[in-house]
Amino acid sequence: MNEMVYEKLEETLQSILQSGNAVELETFTNDLRPFDRGRLFEEIENPDSRKVFIESLHSSNAADLLGHLSPDCQAIAISLIERYRLGRILDDMENDDLAKMLDRLQQDDAAALVEVMSPEEASVVQQIMTYPAESAGRLMTNRFVWIYPEMSVNESVEKLRQYSRVFETIHYLYVVNNKHQVVGVVSFRDLLLADAESLIGSIMSGDVMTVKPAVDQEEVARLIEQYDLIAMPVIDDHDKLIGIITVDDVIDVLIQEATEDIERLSGSGKEITFKTRAVVAFARRLPWLVMLLLIGVVSGTIISEFEETLATVVALAFFMPMIAGMTGNTGTQSLAVVVRGLTTNRIDKKTVSKLILRELMVGVMIGLSCGLLIAMIAYFWQGSMTLGFIVGLSLLTTLIIGTLAGTIIPLILNKFKIDPAIASGPLITTLNDILSLLIYFGIATALIARFPL
Amino acid sequence: MNEMVYEKLEETLQSILQSGNAVELETFTNDLRPFDRGRLFEEIENPDSRKVFIESLHSSNAADLLGHLSPDCQAIAISLIERYRLGRILDDMENDDLAKMLDRLQQDDAAALVEVMSPEEASVVQQIMTYPAESAGRLMTNRFVWIYPEMSVNESVEKLRQYSRVFETIHYLYVVNNKHQVVGVVSFRDLLLADAESLIGSIMSGDVMTVKPAVDQEEVARLIEQYDLIAMPVIDDHDKLIGIITVDDVIDVLIQEATEDIERLSGSGKEITFKTRAVVAFARRLPWLVMLLLIGVVSGTIISEFEETLATVVALAFFMPMIAGMTGNTGTQSLAVVVRGLTTNRIDKKTVSKLILRELMVGVMIGLSCGLLIAMIAYFWQGSMTLGFIVGLSLLTTLIIGTLAGTIIPLILNKFKIDPAIASGPLITTLNDILSLLIYFGIATALIARFPL
Repeated sequence: MNEMVYEKLEETLQSILQSGNAVELETFTNDLRPFDRGRLFEEIENPDSRKVFIESLHSSNAADLLGHLSPDCQAIAISLIERYRLGRILDDMENDDLAKMLDRLQQDDAAALVEVMSPEEASVVQQIMTYPAESAGRLMTNRFVWIYPEMSVNESVEKLRQYSRVFETIHYLYVVNNKHQVVGVVSFRDLLLADAESLIGSIMSGDVMTVKPAVDQEEVARLIEQYDLIAMPVIDDHDKLIGIITVDDVIDVLIQEATEDIERLSGSGKEITFKTRAVVAFARRLPWLVMLLLIGVVSGTIISEFEETLATVVALAFFMPMIAGMTGNTGTQSLAVVVRGLTTNRIDKKTVSKLILRELMVGVMIGLSCGLLIAMIAYFWQGSMTLGFIVGLSLLTTLIIGTLAGTIIPLILNKFKIDPAIASGPLITTLNDILSLLIYFGIATALIARFPL
Repeated sequence: MNEMVYEKLEETLQSILQSGNAVELETFTNDLRPFDRGRLFEEIENPDSRKVFIESLHSSNAADLLGHLSPDCQAIAISLIERYRLGRILDDMENDDLAKMLDRLQQDDAAALVEVMSPEEASVVQQIMTYPAESAGRLMTNRFVWIYPEMSVNESVEKLRQYSRVFETIHYLYVVNNKHQVVGVVSFRDLLLADAESLIGSIMSGDVMTVKPAVDQEEVARLIEQYDLIAMPVIDDHDKLIGIITVDDVIDVLIQEATEDIERLSGSGKEITFKTRAVVAFARRLPWLVMLLLIGVVSGTIISEFEETLATVVALAFFMPMIAGMTGNTGTQSLAVVVRGLTTNRIDKKTVSKLILRELMVGVMIGLSCGLLIAMIAYFWQGSMTLGFIVGLSLLTTLIIGTLAGTIIPLILNKFKIDPAIASGPLITTLNDILSLLIYFGIATALIARFPL
């Protein structure tokens, strides 16, 4: 959507709000595309205008709006909805959106919402919330149409027509047997091109990929991406079809997971967007920075242990930031390769040992070239062969160790089902910082005793 | 796909290859899902087996295989295809896959491939290659069916049936007028549910989002995500429909862009996967590390300028890595927020000034808390009020500057259409490193002269 078109929408909304014409407002807000509706609502600043906006929406559109809002805005929107409408609107929400919203609320608030819902919809969403967070079960919709192999194309289209208001647009119909197990799939295109009297069993494809509800959402996204699917059926332990995951939910997952990886790799704190308030952003970033500060103090303590060496050769301080920085960076480079690689690769012993060997070789090559380079720089700059040797040897050693730490630690974390992107911060930075200083000053102290500058 | 199922496929392939049964091989390889076919081919180690595998494929499947391979493997696969088959296979490839492949080859090699293609297909792919890299024009397919508002549902389905072999599965049909301009869209579902005699003009939706071919692929992905679409029509300057982008291509774009952001933020070098050879990974990472090394030398030079101060108070060295590390990190934190935010937010003056103000406030809050904390630590550890004051004040100042640099620099780069993720490395690290040392030693030198420890 062109920004100018969007600004036009914003202006129109403002002028309708000012005119106070309820009929015009109703037409305008209900005709909007879901994404634009959410964005316009989020950018209204006056609470009264927000209330008027949400009251102008038909309940299905209000339900849809809730699904398109950021968590902070969802809470505001709910508080603006009159209690008598709330149950109907919640009933109309997509189950996955609703479960996600309830998840974020305080337990009491969530329970209060479930109470106003219809018993059937409430039990469906409560069922969905028993699945682990970020799992396939949380993404799926249970509003879909299934058909049987014995049905004709005509009968299938008739069933589709009957339920077309309640089910999500999926572009496939899944075929089940009398035990409700998935036995095939037909696309709408197959239905269009087939003869009206053909049996579904004769035109369906029997090759259907399925997932269990407990499967991680990232795994679902990976399958949909790799096999170019636009939907994925979810089956229970008895192979019964219990839901469908659609490609638009998967796209949201991919964006969310990439953002999480970046947040973790950069230690930038969870869920800070352009709209997060300063004090919230501060609170989310502070813990990681305080930890870094304490790590810095530990590094300082290590340096202070070598105070005598440092006082003898002050020039050692000149190379300190370079060595720590380079070691930290090779670690992050390896880490980034592993973190992204884990999302697209199969991890078995062969892959892992190949990868570690590869990174070891890279570490040695990088260590040799950078070590040699800095040794020469140090020698020509400070005119001391010993200093050049100390700096070069230290960098060689720390780069190899940094590379290995950045490779092996995330692999170990992954083995124990901990998200390896977390490793960036605490583990690798601490380890590389402390090791690099110990190695540098250790080598320096040992060599200076024998070969004075 | 379950790993066990995949390993089963691998075993079956190996046993067929060993038995040398050509008929069995042909059935097996042509029945595979595209993704599995690509993965199996990539994991064959014996060149002869690879040749046999590719020769067993029908040309449309061989074309599809090429589209599913990594760049290194594509070159190998092409070299294994007999010249007399090559033209046909290239003609059968999706245009976007083919353009991407040609792009990566040496100019001469690419020209040689285009030469064996049919003139029509060659001119299409050459046209696609005139669009900028990573643009909508590069993603679109020109194999699609269009219909007219005056056609009935029946006639549309008939046209669809006629062309069903050549066109990609799109799930929508776009409706054009006699100037070939997009005037509407019908989904296959609309066609299924409508009366066979209805006119397309009466059932289509006139609200169609379109993009121009020069639009960045990330922008296309953003629109498809926001508006929950599964295809996007591309129009030329005369509003004529020239191609369609499908959701599966967009998913690949999202993964590619996220990977690029992570690669750039971590300076990990372009396109290093688990399979990249050590020497290649080394070559791709080295430039960034050498630059870091040189930056480190610049930092060293700055420290050496303050050698006298440092020799007087060696304890200043204890806090050096902490200050540089913290400054670098706040910069990266802000940068990550901006880089991710730019992909999902509208950037206007209001947003930008709000964001800068927010980050300034965060920087001040973080600076005050961390500065106070480290001042107390320094005072209790080293017993010097002056040292505590120097360290605390320096950290306060550098954290504010680091935060602002991490916010403003990517915004400026974005304004000049440079990918802001690149900023992480060179610009922000250098700037923050050098500024933090200058500020720290500057404050130290000034204060120590007046208030000796």
